Amino acid sequence: MSASEPQRITLIGLGTIGMSMAALHLARDNTIVDVFDTRPDIQEYLLKTLPNFLHDTSHDSNSTHPQSSAITTLLTTGRLHIHLTLASACASATIIQEQGPENLAFKRSIWAQVESLAPTSAHFWTSTSGIAASAQQEDMLDKTRLLVVHPFNPPHIMPLLEIVPSSTTAPSRVEFAREYFSLPPGESRHRPVVIQKEIPGFVGNRLAFALLREACYLVQEDVVSVKDLDTVLMASLGPRWAGNGVFESYQQGGGEGGIKAFLEKLGGTMQEVWGGLGDVNVLGSERTEWKEKVIRQTDEAYGTLTKEGVWEKEERLKDFIRAQERRYGQ
Amino acid sequence: MSASEPQRITLIGLGTIGMSMAALHLARDNTIVDVFDTRPDIQEYLLKTLPNFLHDTSHDSNSTHPQSSAITTLLTTGRLHIHLTLASACASATIIQEQGPENLAFKRSIWAQVESLAPTSAHFWTSTSGIAASAQQEDMLDKTRLLVVHPFNPPHIMPLLEIVPSSTTAPSRVEFAREYFSLPPGESRHRPVVIQKEIPGFVGNRLAFALLREACYLVQEDVVSVKDLDTVLMASLGPRWAGNGVFESYQQGGGEGGIKAFLEKLGGTMQEVWGGLGDVNVLGSERTEWKEKVIRQTDEAYGTLTKEGVWEKEERLKDFIRAQERRYGQ
Repeated sequence: MSASEPQRITLIGLGTIGMSMAALHLARDNTIVDVFDTRPDIQEYLLKTLPNFLHDTSHDSNSTHPQSSAITTLLTTGRLHIHLTLASACASATIIQEQGPENLAFKRSIWAQVESLAPTSAHFWTSTSGIAASAQQEDMLDKTRLLVVHPFNPPHIMPLLEIVPSSTTAPSRVEFAREYFSLPPGESRHRPVVIQKEIPGFVGNRLAFALLREACYLVQEDVVSVKDLDTVLMASLGPRWAGNGVFESYQQGGGEGGIKAFLEKLGGTMQEVWGGLGDVNVLGSERTEWKEKVIRQTDEAYGTLTKEGVWEKEERLKDFIRAQERRYGQ
Repeated sequence: MSASEPQRITLIGLGTIGMSMAALHLARDNTIVDVFDTRPDIQEYLLKTLPNFLHDTSHDSNSTHPQSSAITTLLTTGRLHIHLTLASACASATIIQEQGPENLAFKRSIWAQVESLAPTSAHFWTSTSGIAASAQQEDMLDKTRLLVVHPFNPPHIMPLLEIVPSSTTAPSRVEFAREYFSLPPGESRHRPVVIQKEIPGFVGNRLAFALLREACYLVQEDVVSVKDLDTVLMASLGPRWAGNGVFESYQQGGGEGGIKAFLEKLGGTMQEVWGGLGDVNVLGSERTEWKEKVIRQTDEAYGTLTKEGVWEKEERLKDFIRAQERRYGQ
């Protein structure tokens, strides 16, 4: 079955990521979405929460906010189903995607159950940010079906999906997931990337955490405040990396000699920086002096984000993604 | 003298950064720019090259390309002067900004000369990316005047300027530079940040190089290709950090509990990633296996950027910066 054919997607776990994923799948015309969550008020919660996510898929900041009636329509037309049992949710799926708690015991157990309940052809995707497919599938009989589809928040807007198979996942399963997220559904264009090896944090969070570690160190050492460090990032690297990758940027930075010339020219400063990067911890009691300072300064700078603040951030994110997709003529 | 009053800025060194800096200063109505460069064809070179930078300050991708006649006008109206000696270039300056070779001996020598030639009130700025003001000023008599103004390429578009004083730089000199770059000249809005301590790579490049080091390690280990890693960055962290700083993002990611809750929730994965970050070098012969692979894959992915390619990148960068400045109403 090609990923461009109609799909019936079961979502297990309807937290924030699950809701956003539901919106992502529902933005495609030829999908049916089945949801299963253990919370007792799931229908009420869905009617109240999902409209906010559906709104965002329109890419149109001027449209009026859709009401829960939009969800009622999805329910009555059969595009969205709420299930009370895992068995019923899985029975007709072509894809089963899980975004439950980040807990290995839970994930091992749920996949063994899902395997016994779902059609043998169904694809199994986990939205985990930290637990490899190889660990999650230990209690499954068939270890060729499961792979990680790690989204970035919020997935109905953010283009990246990291597809991380285990060493036993069938290549055709990887290709199906890559193809599904490569399809253009309306205006929302996603950009799946296949990660070749299981590694903690995959690629996106490893890069983010490498930068964050140095950021925490610089605040600890009073080189810069939390707020000023964020300004540095937003006024330089953020917009640069929204337009160019890091390697592409340095290929350009090296002029005609490319990244090779850049590494030769900046090698001295780079080695000095690499040799002196902050070696701080997040767990334990050693080298964690940064935590109190970072938390205090971050609270002072930003407080708790309001609903309007989150809305504005998402509108801006969509602006950046539209700018990424723009074509220029001279 | 307030930074909002008319300024007369001397630029020493007219390479790519110098040209872009000239465009930045000329975009302000109340400036006179004096340039000095040792290349013998400086006038011809300026007429040919500077129009490309002036074009970009207009923030209007539909405007026709200005010709060298625009430079002739600047020269005849006295807004731009080309000098054949350092003495003549410095004689009437309120600000002297240097972007010469990244070489300590050169910089020590030029600042000692400039000090003897310029008015005693003039501000001294160096655009270095790697040599601290405290090292550059060793041969100066007055060690309160010099500070680093580190731009990100291209400075006439990129908002960030890192202002890095030495421990002896006068606070009023720091404040003057911060104020000057905070002024809104037409449509180009810069965002200066004062860095509190001299440290190799300052803040922006330390953050960039921390991420780059892990990127090189991931390519070395065949976790991901150069091209796919760049896609990961552009499809997630780039647009996120164009809109939110790293601390602000995690404050939001932690929900009501803010960054404290985020650090508790993701602490396990984060510590595992921090503990396993790639420990590679750029200089020397050990742990440099990544270099050949990264250079080859980067060349294959991007080749040499064409003039049109650079133009398109700059137009896109301006789109991101415009999106950063946009205000949203609900």
